[in-house]
Amino acid sequence: MAATWAVRAGLGVVVFTLSLEVLVWVCRRSRSRSKGVLKEVIFFPTNAACVEHVFMPAFQCPCLLQHGVETSFARLLRHILSANSTLDLCVFAFSHMDLSRAVLALHARGLVIRVLTDKDYASINGSQIGLLLKAGICVRSDSGAVHMHHKFALVDGRRVITGSLNWTMTAVQNNKENVMVTEEPDLVTPFVREFQRLWEANDPERLRRTAAPL
Amino acid sequence: MAATWAVRAGLGVVVFTLSLEVLVWVCRRSRSRSKGVLKEVIFFPTNAACVEHVFMPAFQCPCLLQHGVETSFARLLRHILSANSTLDLCVFAFSHMDLSRAVLALHARGLVIRVLTDKDYASINGSQIGLLLKAGICVRSDSGAVHMHHKFALVDGRRVITGSLNWTMTAVQNNKENVMVTEEPDLVTPFVREFQRLWEANDPERLRRTAAPL
Repeated sequence: MAATWAVRAGLGVVVFTLSLEVLVWVCRRSRSRSKGVLKEVIFFPTNAACVEHVFMPAFQCPCLLQHGVETSFARLLRHILSANSTLDLCVFAFSHMDLSRAVLALHARGLVIRVLTDKDYASINGSQIGLLLKAGICVRSDSGAVHMHHKFALVDGRRVITGSLNWTMTAVQNNKENVMVTEEPDLVTPFVREFQRLWEANDPERLRRTAAPL
Repeated sequence: MAATWAVRAGLGVVVFTLSLEVLVWVCRRSRSRSKGVLKEVIFFPTNAACVEHVFMPAFQCPCLLQHGVETSFARLLRHILSANSTLDLCVFAFSHMDLSRAVLALHARGLVIRVLTDKDYASINGSQIGLLLKAGICVRSDSGAVHMHHKFALVDGRRVITGSLNWTMTAVQNNKENVMVTEEPDLVTPFVREFQRLWEANDPERLRRTAAPL
């Protein structure tokens, strides 16, 4: 009888210890998952440096700029180029050639790209919007606001890149700017919804129907 | 002997059950704390509506605008007015009179307020920076960048309000804009550090010493 109780007590202790271990692991995993969600802030301006290593890691670029430096701009480019399926851009001014090159590279990889931009800034000198259109990327310009002043990107619908930074050389190399990058669902979901709302509201076909005389 | 084992086994079961309960509670608390951190996105433009109820809840405003409406702008104002000890502003263009009124109200309450702004936009027509200076608020303008293009505020050093929105009437009422409000430490801390860095870098006394002839 005593032996039976000893076995039962022993088993109880083993089960207890194992359960504790499992619970501690579950707790840790739950905390690290929340901690591990991408939350990054990038500040500008950044020093001019070559970004060829971001586009083509093996390429030995002969240009005169500093090479292999991980600047704020290189980090921003990496976040954009990390897209696997979709890229939704909502950008006020878009004249930076390397940012345009990144978007065109994703388009060439077959990703679905949608660009929503400001109607006045789409056609100014140096704007990259014409190049994107020429490549067959779907672009819409905001018809309602004084300015479509957003500067955010949605990578695969689950990562938002947003802040004060317009997609221009002046912003990247000369201004004090910030860009926040996060996959925190509570922050990403509102941007996904707002993009979809603005995209549908600025559908040229829909606008044509609305404007048509009765 | 059997009775002793029975008591031990019984105690084991009680301890096991209690430990499980405690661990489940700790896990839930840990998850809900992470879930409960303020993470909000506010979109603009917003319809013009009276915001007197945000400043003075009991006041019956006789103006012609719609009253008692919780617009995006009212939410933004509430976040700013929630400050208890400090408000650090890093704003490019600041001409919105109700935002200026909120900052002046916090100053009158005795909060420590620091304003860092763009040197070119500080003195344009309609800028509120002169009013803040006149009230005795400490203002510095960025001396280095082409534009100090940030548009963020730090409330009590633990809540960041940031986005594309300049502090102007056009931005609030006419443009497509976003403002993110969060107390997520991984997102707030970089802004706190950047503000402090820019504040020190633009200390007029330090700049005077640097510019003094040898």
